Amino acid sequence: MTTSYATRLVDGRELIYYDRKPGQDRTAADLRTDLPPAFTTSQMRWNPLFRDYAVIAEHRQERTYRPPADLCPLCPSRDGKRTEIPASDYEVAVFENRFPSLSLASADVIPLIDEPPFRSAAAAGRCEVVCFTSDHDTPFAQLDPEHVRTVIDAWADRTTVLSAIDSVDYVFCFENRGEEIGVTLSHPHGQIYGYPFVPPRFYKTGEALERHRARTGACLQCDLLAAECADGARIITSSTHWVAYVPFAARWPYEVRLVPRRHLPDLPALTDDERDDLAHAYLTVLQAFERLFDTPTPYIAGWQQSPVRRGRDVWHLGAEIFTIRRAPGRLKHLAGSESGAAVWINDVAPEVAAQRLRGERPVDE
Amino acid sequence: MTTSYATRLVDGRELIYYDRKPGQDRTAADLRTDLPPAFTTSQMRWNPLFRDYAVIAEHRQERTYRPPADLCPLCPSRDGKRTEIPASDYEVAVFENRFPSLSLASADVIPLIDEPPFRSAAAAGRCEVVCFTSDHDTPFAQLDPEHVRTVIDAWADRTTVLSAIDSVDYVFCFENRGEEIGVTLSHPHGQIYGYPFVPPRFYKTGEALERHRARTGACLQCDLLAAECADGARIITSSTHWVAYVPFAARWPYEVRLVPRRHLPDLPALTDDERDDLAHAYLTVLQAFERLFDTPTPYIAGWQQSPVRRGRDVWHLGAEIFTIRRAPGRLKHLAGSESGAAVWINDVAPEVAAQRLRGERPVDE
Repeated sequence: MTTSYATRLVDGRELIYYDRKPGQDRTAADLRTDLPPAFTTSQMRWNPLFRDYAVIAEHRQERTYRPPADLCPLCPSRDGKRTEIPASDYEVAVFENRFPSLSLASADVIPLIDEPPFRSAAAAGRCEVVCFTSDHDTPFAQLDPEHVRTVIDAWADRTTVLSAIDSVDYVFCFENRGEEIGVTLSHPHGQIYGYPFVPPRFYKTGEALERHRARTGACLQCDLLAAECADGARIITSSTHWVAYVPFAARWPYEVRLVPRRHLPDLPALTDDERDDLAHAYLTVLQAFERLFDTPTPYIAGWQQSPVRRGRDVWHLGAEIFTIRRAPGRLKHLAGSESGAAVWINDVAPEVAAQRLRGERPVDE
Repeated sequence: MTTSYATRLVDGRELIYYDRKPGQDRTAADLRTDLPPAFTTSQMRWNPLFRDYAVIAEHRQERTYRPPADLCPLCPSRDGKRTEIPASDYEVAVFENRFPSLSLASADVIPLIDEPPFRSAAAAGRCEVVCFTSDHDTPFAQLDPEHVRTVIDAWADRTTVLSAIDSVDYVFCFENRGEEIGVTLSHPHGQIYGYPFVPPRFYKTGEALERHRARTGACLQCDLLAAECADGARIITSSTHWVAYVPFAARWPYEVRLVPRRHLPDLPALTDDERDDLAHAYLTVLQAFERLFDTPTPYIAGWQQSPVRRGRDVWHLGAEIFTIRRAPGRLKHLAGSESGAAVWINDVAPEVAAQRLRGERPVDE
């Protein structure tokens, strides 16, 4: 049973501790005296040609850039060093990002513009940082399953809390791992974005799920899962409640989709058993990525949940985990085709990627 | 008046020279004896969840990776060194990529699969390399306008030729510039992809243009152009036939849209005057990018033309030029929000980006 304790940092931002051991003292106050109030100007601007929003967040240009390890702001406050986490230890901690891409406070400073073709508004969302562990040097893949269960409970709780914010239409829990992906803090952490709109990728998925339901009466994600299990060539792991596979049409050199067998919309809908099982399945997937190369694998992992207010009954939860490394020392860059035209070119066949992720075939073959 | 001369390389790939000076001898034969026939296995696989294709091109994993400059395969063949261009000099040369993402020949080896949810087919398209100049060390931004005019004529001609291929639905002319974007050959060159489907980004734009036309009777691109000119804050350059501006909802730190004032669908539709004027306007934009930083600016530049067989009357040609560098030494990485959710977060306000591109404000302010 995970318990949570909510407090505030000295500049007013929220901090929430999540603990599986009851009775932890998380009341330590943030004693920093040199932290000016954060100022945010996030706005969302509509691009009518591509029918999507760009988020403009000027204040982020000044964000913290690769501090030395002994000044890590995500470590507990110890030895006189004051960090974002006042407690001297923690299991899992979540706090509001000091340099958020999306911010409820922006609504106070960003005007609404509705002069077509120019349309913009405050990007009134929320960005949180999830510290997966207090241990600076233990990556997610090496956490123990009970600890991962606490992370899952934190993700689920934050999803529930952020979904209750009027302006939030989508909650995206994700982890960026590795300098190659632009991660500026090496402490194991992820992020949660509460978007004030449904991101284009998930909007499109929602439409696809609705269309498939209307046409066949079935869930497309359930059908895909059944087809992948029947085929078998791309399965990475299969447990009581979860299946992980490389999608038939994977975009990335190594890409895995992890889905619950039961049709359900989001992380809060998972039962205790499904969460316990997920901890193991998720670790199996991350460890498969870790084994691919001689050096830590850069990856992006994100949860595709139901939009908050649209199509919850048709949505089927899934996680997407992928790396941008296509071979030792070589990255998959998003160049003209991907960034310009949104067409991904993948040099690794999904069936071969699955063999390598299962350890059946070396990567440098 | 640009003339062209078509020949074939020793492995059967096409090579076309484009020259403004008449009477050039481009008949030199490809004398390489050590070039095995290229083998391609490009396939397009449908992803029903996101409603897009991923292109799987396994053979590309083995492609040439940063050869030393004295072995540059895009330089003319000289001094006993045999390259992709048999001539001892050239102005502009286009040839079929030896490691193509898309290939008509794949149709011979890739079976059609139509077993929903699994659907795939040969990615029967075409990938060409455009050598902008024979001079290894002159970037596009430093070419003279007459030379750029030849490049424009080559782009237009290739668009016409590739559009005539049955399976090609979209012709995308683009340039990836800089190692940060993953460019493995430093010789100034671009690429042309003849996609066997309309790329998702342009499909969406086509829908937006059609919807706007149906609702207002007007062209959205024309309306945007008029609104940007009336506003003025984001204009980069404005000539007789062309206007370049930073879009109100720019996704990238520095992004420019270059559009013809006249409503027209693609590069072949440009008049002589429009092409001459484009050479100057395009150079103005590229030079603005070059001035931003102390080191050469990595950029992606691509032409958004009408799909070959759909919506030609509603389409309005435009080029998009952007850099992934957000500050000196810092890249805009596509992490969880961009690659996972397709939501771009931009740290530079488009109005500020425009000032910097116009040279009115330093970038490291």
